[in-house]
Amino acid sequence: MTPVRTGLWLIGARGSVATTAISGLFAVRAGLAAPTGLVTHRPEFADVDLPGWDEIVVGGHDIATTPVEKRAEQLAAGGVLPPHLADALRQALRAVEAEIREGYRAGTPGPQADAARRLADDITSFRERHELDRVVVVNVSSTEPPCALAPEHTDLADLTAALADPDREVLPPSSLAAYAALLAGCPFVDFTPSTGITLPALTELADREQLPYGGRDGKTGETLLRTVLAPMFTSRALNVLSWAGTNILGGGDGATLSDPDAARGKLETKGRGLAALLGHEVAAPLHIDNVPDLGEWKTAWDHVHFEGFLGARMTLQFTWHGLDSALAAPLVLDLARLTAAAHAAGRVGALGALAFFFKDPLGSDEHRLAEQFRDLVAWAREL
Amino acid sequence: MTPVRTGLWLIGARGSVATTAISGLFAVRAGLAAPTGLVTHRPEFADVDLPGWDEIVVGGHDIATTPVEKRAEQLAAGGVLPPHLADALRQALRAVEAEIREGYRAGTPGPQADAARRLADDITSFRERHELDRVVVVNVSSTEPPCALAPEHTDLADLTAALADPDREVLPPSSLAAYAALLAGCPFVDFTPSTGITLPALTELADREQLPYGGRDGKTGETLLRTVLAPMFTSRALNVLSWAGTNILGGGDGATLSDPDAARGKLETKGRGLAALLGHEVAAPLHIDNVPDLGEWKTAWDHVHFEGFLGARMTLQFTWHGLDSALAAPLVLDLARLTAAAHAAGRVGALGALAFFFKDPLGSDEHRLAEQFRDLVAWAREL
Amino acid sequence: MTPVRTGLWLIGARGSVATTAISGLFAVRAGLAAPTGLVTHRPEFADVDLPGWDEIVVGGHDIATTPVEKRAEQLAAGGVLPPHLADALRQALRAVEAEIREGYRAGTPGPQADAARRLADDITSFRERHELDRVVVVNVSSTEPPCALAPEHTDLADLTAALADPDREVLPPSSLAAYAALLAGCPFVDFTPSTGITLPALTELADREQLPYGGRDGKTGETLLRTVLAPMFTSRALNVLSWAGTNILGGGDGATLSDPDAARGKLETKGRGLAALLGHEVAAPLHIDNVPDLGEWKTAWDHVHFEGFLGARMTLQFTWHGLDSALAAPLVLDLARLTAAAHAAGRVGALGALAFFFKDPLGSDEHRLAEQFRDLVAWAREL
Amino acid sequence: MTPVRTGLWLIGARGSVATTAISGLFAVRAGLAAPTGLVTHRPEFADVDLPGWDEIVVGGHDIATTPVEKRAEQLAAGGVLPPHLADALRQALRAVEAEIREGYRAGTPGPQADAARRLADDITSFRERHELDRVVVVNVSSTEPPCALAPEHTDLADLTAALADPDREVLPPSSLAAYAALLAGCPFVDFTPSTGITLPALTELADREQLPYGGRDGKTGETLLRTVLAPMFTSRALNVLSWAGTNILGGGDGATLSDPDAARGKLETKGRGLAALLGHEVAAPLHIDNVPDLGEWKTAWDHVHFEGFLGARMTLQFTWHGLDSALAAPLVLDLARLTAAAHAAGRVGALGALAFFFKDPLGSDEHRLAEQFRDLVAWAREL
Repeated sequence: MTPVRTGLWLIGARGSVATTAISGLFAVRAGLAAPTGLVTHRPEFADVDLPGWDEIVVGGHDIATTPVEKRAEQLAAGGVLPPHLADALRQALRAVEAEIREGYRAGTPGPQADAARRLADDITSFRERHELDRVVVVNVSSTEPPCALAPEHTDLADLTAALADPDREVLPPSSLAAYAALLAGCPFVDFTPSTGITLPALTELADREQLPYGGRDGKTGETLLRTVLAPMFTSRALNVLSWAGTNILGGGDGATLSDPDAARGKLETKGRGLAALLGHEVAAPLHIDNVPDLGEWKTAWDHVHFEGFLGARMTLQFTWHGLDSALAAPLVLDLARLTAAAHAAGRVGALGALAFFFKDPLGSDEHRLAEQFRDLVAWAREL
Repeated sequence: MTPVRTGLWLIGARGSVATTAISGLFAVRAGLAAPTGLVTHRPEFADVDLPGWDEIVVGGHDIATTPVEKRAEQLAAGGVLPPHLADALRQALRAVEAEIREGYRAGTPGPQADAARRLADDITSFRERHELDRVVVVNVSSTEPPCALAPEHTDLADLTAALADPDREVLPPSSLAAYAALLAGCPFVDFTPSTGITLPALTELADREQLPYGGRDGKTGETLLRTVLAPMFTSRALNVLSWAGTNILGGGDGATLSDPDAARGKLETKGRGLAALLGHEVAAPLHIDNVPDLGEWKTAWDHVHFEGFLGARMTLQFTWHGLDSALAAPLVLDLARLTAAAHAAGRVGALGALAFFFKDPLGSDEHRLAEQFRDLVAWAREL
Repeated sequence: MTPVRTGLWLIGARGSVATTAISGLFAVRAGLAAPTGLVTHRPEFADVDLPGWDEIVVGGHDIATTPVEKRAEQLAAGGVLPPHLADALRQALRAVEAEIREGYRAGTPGPQADAARRLADDITSFRERHELDRVVVVNVSSTEPPCALAPEHTDLADLTAALADPDREVLPPSSLAAYAALLAGCPFVDFTPSTGITLPALTELADREQLPYGGRDGKTGETLLRTVLAPMFTSRALNVLSWAGTNILGGGDGATLSDPDAARGKLETKGRGLAALLGHEVAAPLHIDNVPDLGEWKTAWDHVHFEGFLGARMTLQFTWHGLDSALAAPLVLDLARLTAAAHAAGRVGALGALAFFFKDPLGSDEHRLAEQFRDLVAWAREL
Repeated sequence: MTPVRTGLWLIGARGSVATTAISGLFAVRAGLAAPTGLVTHRPEFADVDLPGWDEIVVGGHDIATTPVEKRAEQLAAGGVLPPHLADALRQALRAVEAEIREGYRAGTPGPQADAARRLADDITSFRERHELDRVVVVNVSSTEPPCALAPEHTDLADLTAALADPDREVLPPSSLAAYAALLAGCPFVDFTPSTGITLPALTELADREQLPYGGRDGKTGETLLRTVLAPMFTSRALNVLSWAGTNILGGGDGATLSDPDAARGKLETKGRGLAALLGHEVAAPLHIDNVPDLGEWKTAWDHVHFEGFLGARMTLQFTWHGLDSALAAPLVLDLARLTAAAHAAGRVGALGALAFFFKDPLGSDEHRLAEQFRDLVAWAREL
């Protein structure tokens, strides 16, 4: 069998998650690290025809300028990457850095159609230069504030017209990135809660182009736990009365989310899932706080108050203490492999079977992790 | 359809779990309490032909002498039962008290065969007196120390001979109770980690009598959580390095388990499941401490140390604060209904589909709660 | 020695804290409850000349209308009071109810001077009717939003003039209550974070009337812990980097504090102390959330991130789970006794020695609990 | 003033605590690290005449053979030391390594008197070689099991006779080390819970030699917290009902304490203090578990159940997550400085004022941290 060469194009390619994913890809490929955290390395996926770790080529867009190899050193200092790895992988990281192009920044003058064309050309050029069978575009850039739905967001023709207007900024950067990916004929996956591909005009485009897409907002901590704990309560017929949560985090993510507007997007996708899981609304105050000294660490505390037999009131508390980039990065690689395989198999539209990875799954209303895993495995085996 | 009248015969009928189960049965039947905590009341079981709450008659054995209605008052003082309920149900509880017979106490002189016959006659008489279609026997008595397997435990003929010897004490009380239940033609369910029906000679008897049985050790707290959290780690390919746990509890259970021998049984069933769930052994120190001032409350703290991508070390901690009797009691009622239905449907042998309820499921090596729930529902719908 | 009869006049006399304090006073007096939680019952105060539990007479103001004896029943249902106590004390509580007068409600038409006179007359009449040596006024009403300092707040003559204006609302209710107390010649203690007596014009009045006063914002949970933990870190030269906190609570307090304006006052007094204790500012995000199903319970989670030798980063987390009224009520009685003794001994102005009881102590900048206790004992022994 | 040169002789000089203390001494001296965690660097001690960081010379005994500079690398890999520090200090650490002599190992043939003489000569030679004014001996070696008091332990003459017997092993290694220190005319400080100097015959020797000594068992985590939290409860007249604790730790300490005999010593000193602090015995189950994957980290969980006003039952939980060596090491340096100053000032016998540092303070029954700190400062200022 001829190797199927796959491109992974990262929006936010110089960020923590991207740098960790890239470093990990090379480390696992070189046998410098175990495949811990890589879901598609589990035995359930042994017979699925996925791109091999050495068949993936990485490039991307970013508006930050710190090179990937420098970012890797920072992550090593912050405890996310083993110190020796940043050294061992320097050459490989530099090679990726050479494949990173300037991303789109909100407020750039001129019609957004031009910007989208430029972004799409970057991806196409990457695909041709490396003779890739396909390129999966994954958004791992900073979270944007939620975007109000405008009329031109709901119809592709209207959107196309609006994008040509040099005086309008029709799409937020994440959605422009999705648009460009689709223009370039690439599947798009949104690992963030940003608007991305969720606008009706963009899903219309994906359908027209016969492309699959997935998202959104990788679940890596508090929500991951909620999607196993909430089903535990419901299957035992225990009545959850309230579910309070607090997240403290540093790093770039902490700084981004200290902007209440940006945090709102995150909080909304988190809240949506909980009510769906429990089958009813509960008091669920939720906070995200920027605590810079935590660096790359994220700590979440949840307090669940529930009622059992004969009205007994009981509680569950948990504290999750994780390195967000280390939790997210392998999932980005998993998503690249699975989405590439779905594209190869001709899947089109929202890939609901990827719900396992997301807080706010597109194409699925299943939030229970165990069911999501079961669905994922079954789906992958049919590819 | 003629109502199918079902007996529930509780070993340890005057204990906390039994008293809560009995009180709850009457409270739900009378509309004095919502069916919170009753799994078989969930919509998934709506079409399953289970005995109705008003078709269940309760009796049992115990060696304690505090009457059920008095025990209910104590539980109300301890916060397990709402104060008004103990009052409202006094007559009903007295009626159950009239159906409780003296249990078997270790060290009773004479052949154990005679004791077993007496116990079986108590159950048979109960069945006939109330014109019951069947009686399900459920053990909710205090946890016994583990019992060493003797040769006569492995063969029914040998066991029968040994039981006739007036100078030998062949079976621990929980196993004598199981033996008596089978003699009386009744399904047996063990909600405790005691030896009960697990001896080969007894399962041989169950098979011979064409009876179903289930167990063991109801999962109501720490283990319940472990059976959703461990699959979360494994499905995400996260490598659990250690899983430490501490349980503090008061009440009768706390006093029983302050005996290291009795605690050993509990700790063994807890430990077994964890390794099975994770697929490998981990450092998993586990303690159960008697803290009398906690009364009926049980608090568990677990600390999970795990490894993610590129060797990142992270932790999850949880604290569970529950009323053990309130968590266990509805499951006892669920098990009575489901086992009665299984018996009616001609099921024989270990009911592996009941694994959802147990720490150490008989007839199943599935420990993942979500899968257990799925299996349970599928099985029940086929009854 | 002739018994010194002391009045305790509670602003918010029908609230949870007041009702618990009143119930507890009678319960301890009648020997129905141990003096747990009463600081002035500790051996350190054995030789201090404080009013006896049977020498205290209670009355107060409130704008709520649920009678104290009814409120006690509600608190018993919520687990704050033992159920039998509400019954046993009904007569005594009704007698207190007869001493409660209508409080001042913001927005009442007419000059505030008239309202203040009416409030003061209520207190004077209470003192005379019961032949009391003195009356201590303690504010335990709902927390108000912070109040902007106006020019007339800083000078007593200006304030007096402004209060006479029928078209102006110069003082928030807590400050009007303080003003009325001083008019009636009574010491004033603020157990809440409301403005109360802290306006310069009011402290000027207290000084002129030769009256002592104390406050503010009783420390009963999270802050209590912080005032022992922060000194631990500093005395060990450990460098606290951040101190994040979340409070979830139900009850009336939860509802009040779900108003961000009211919560602001609480958050401000909490934050002020932490920086003082640590000697420097730290990232200290803090939340108060209303979770109605928690009823009278309050749960606080704090996460402290600190640095030790050679830059080692470590953490302390705690969860406090308390009944706020049960924690606050005995302190109200302690404050009544101590303030009465201070008044008897001729103490004037801010009673800094009461800092032990408060989040934001008036007349003291000592926040360390152990030092506060030491100071309190030394001060009381000199009375 | 001529510099007073002070020796610090560490028993267990190649262990984690010693290596961290030595590394930190050099790092602080060289300005490579801030003095975080060093109590004697706080302003309260600014006017106390303590040996400067550049006036301290280090040597010691050990039975382990991994050189200090190698141990420092291991600690850097385990996150206790910053990676660059192990490199920067390599020469300095090698110089200390050259001052380490073989320690005494239990079971060594021959009279213990000879071994003690050899140990004392090592210290004397170190003092003379470096022209030191004095040498403080600090035990930071692995915890020993508790030692049964024998008749010869209670009288110095009897002990001296027994030590001369080649066939008897009269003293455990920690006590032999203390004996040797006193023979060499040196103050002795025990940072461990081992028997050390606590035998009456040894304190008799210290008194005869006019030497001060201090100990024992450095308080660095769970107990540190308990000594601020327990006084909080008592000063608020709250009634602690139970105080359960669990410690999980890896590293050498974890392995040592997985031996129940060794753990017993630790558990005993921990338990003793709690009852003293609370003024009464409480249910206080306590565990120490070896969890090797935690490496140098120690995590403690405590659950405090307490009673407040009118019998309200409430809880406090905390989780402490610390690097034990980083917490202990600066205290070792503080103790060296303070004990040297006490010796210079002619202090003799148990230094009760050092109680601030210890779980089981010799010469003091004060366990409250705040009072201990106050006492320490007052004492130091009088030196």
